[in-house]
Amino acid sequence: MPEVRQNLVTKEWVIIATERAKRPKDFVRKEEPQKLPAYDRSCPFCPGNESMTPPEVLRYDGRDGWLVRIVPNKFPALVPDGQPRRQREGIYLRMDGIGRHEVIIETPEHNQTMATLNGQQMELVVRAYYDRFCELSKQPQCTLIVIFRNQGERAGTSLVHPHSQLVGMPFIPLHIRRYMYELERHYDALGRCAVCDILEHELKEGVRIVLQNRHFVSLVPYAASFPYEIWIIPFRHQAAFSELAEDELKDLAAALKMTLLKLHIGLNQPDYNLVLNSAPHFSAGEPFYHWYIRIVPRLTTPAGFELGSGVSINVSLPEENAAHLRSVQLPGENTT
Amino acid sequence: MPEVRQNLVTKEWVIIATERAKRPKDFVRKEEPQKLPAYDRSCPFCPGNESMTPPEVLRYDGRDGWLVRIVPNKFPALVPDGQPRRQREGIYLRMDGIGRHEVIIETPEHNQTMATLNGQQMELVVRAYYDRFCELSKQPQCTLIVIFRNQGERAGTSLVHPHSQLVGMPFIPLHIRRYMYELERHYDALGRCAVCDILEHELKEGVRIVLQNRHFVSLVPYAASFPYEIWIIPFRHQAAFSELAEDELKDLAAALKMTLLKLHIGLNQPDYNLVLNSAPHFSAGEPFYHWYIRIVPRLTTPAGFELGSGVSINVSLPEENAAHLRSVQLPGENTT
Repeated sequence: MPEVRQNLVTKEWVIIATERAKRPKDFVRKEEPQKLPAYDRSCPFCPGNESMTPPEVLRYDGRDGWLVRIVPNKFPALVPDGQPRRQREGIYLRMDGIGRHEVIIETPEHNQTMATLNGQQMELVVRAYYDRFCELSKQPQCTLIVIFRNQGERAGTSLVHPHSQLVGMPFIPLHIRRYMYELERHYDALGRCAVCDILEHELKEGVRIVLQNRHFVSLVPYAASFPYEIWIIPFRHQAAFSELAEDELKDLAAALKMTLLKLHIGLNQPDYNLVLNSAPHFSAGEPFYHWYIRIVPRLTTPAGFELGSGVSINVSLPEENAAHLRSVQLPGENTT
Repeated sequence: MPEVRQNLVTKEWVIIATERAKRPKDFVRKEEPQKLPAYDRSCPFCPGNESMTPPEVLRYDGRDGWLVRIVPNKFPALVPDGQPRRQREGIYLRMDGIGRHEVIIETPEHNQTMATLNGQQMELVVRAYYDRFCELSKQPQCTLIVIFRNQGERAGTSLVHPHSQLVGMPFIPLHIRRYMYELERHYDALGRCAVCDILEHELKEGVRIVLQNRHFVSLVPYAASFPYEIWIIPFRHQAAFSELAEDELKDLAAALKMTLLKLHIGLNQPDYNLVLNSAPHFSAGEPFYHWYIRIVPRLTTPAGFELGSGVSINVSLPEENAAHLRSVQLPGENTT
């Protein structure tokens, strides 16, 4: 019997197609991933090619050159100049595409991926997320800041050199409004943050936990929309990513790295998207919103049903995904 | 300067990335589409293999055998038996996956596609949509009926034999609720259906029209989420698909066929999803909802930004898409 589960954050129903559920091994990438060189002279993100990108907005240096660079996207979805004033066009509303679109080059090494960065480098990447989130929060055009990462061709990227992206947008998308609205309603009814409720419940149940450290837990949500969808959630309630504390930053880097490495090993380097679901920065301190990182491996293809209904069909069991990832042993790991 | 446009139906903002907009020719499929035989003995939808599918729920016969067959999906996302009662599971809500999931086999010929069906066959397919929509509307489990079609591998199909699908679901997805809510608000504020407003405006403007006949218009929406997204809209206001009249059914078949054929020729057989955006059947007669068919070619890959923000980036211009499709000459066509 298929099962329909409700996502407690968005209140969306998800079909868990237990009858046609695939086994963990069915999701493991079959083809051998492309072998890449450590340096590619034609890659705009490799050292020596800094002139191929727009000038840096931020850089972290090491002993032998830069470790992380943040540059404006050369082909931006939104551009910095102008005022995001709404205008009427006949019966419609429009505005100029004002905002920020930046690229975070995560390492000088062409053939790394986030899962294989060393701990220190991973921490620099998370620091770059944090620094740019806080800096762009000061820009009046950046009402909402979306940080994301596309790994691999199926996840919509063309450049293989490890990078994340950041978009500062001049409006709150309905998608985010709905999160905020549903979390607010949960808080008004139950006097608690829904994500805090999820944390408490899931830690007690245990079956959907992937790993945890002092400040973060990584889990497969009860109503995961996609096979191997993972949320990385801070234990301490915080609405906006800018509320992250220094010791939490280190733990986030560690939880993110270990989670991605488990996916990397367990599914043989799957393509995935990663997004940071933060409230708008001016919502910092709100008691109902709780940011988290969402990782969605691209293992299946949403089709007409999803487009027409907005309902996902997950052909795997969240509990089975989590058990599989828990069983993936990391190099040098003693406990999960 | 990129542009942000609001979808008047959903109130979602869409980024029209004018600066990195591609030209029509960039969307034309490069690889030669697979040549298929008219009959494949291993295909469960080919004549003679009727026993490979569950028993028919409806069939239209011609002189030499069946023309269209409707069968339950062998691997259903939802199943008919049981009561869709919500249950608590800890802090969550769940229900059994009750509903209907049917397959509409559109033709006995393995190597056709909806765009190449003859007019009479196309009419039978639309009649099958209508008949099953009306029939399943009587089932208490079928709160919402979603009809859709996945063409090609990029659109999430594995079986090439031409077929559509129909899912009757025991709940209203939030996605549909939002449509209804926004259309209702538009009606309450302006005393008009938003889609009727769009029709009036677009017919006056003309630049986004693809084609029209007596009862239907085919257009690229002002805030198209995807390159070459098309809506086929009935002129007469109707909330639920079950309100379709007999002469409209014929015109819908013609408009659908011509629109798909223009895509088929103009983009060299692109993969696409097609969905019927109808109100729940019990909303028939409501003055604010207006059903339409939505066609979304799979020409680009939504990535982390779309996942995190819910906002689409369209790398084409709706006006240019429509002009291109208007210019595609159909065999035997005198005027559009």
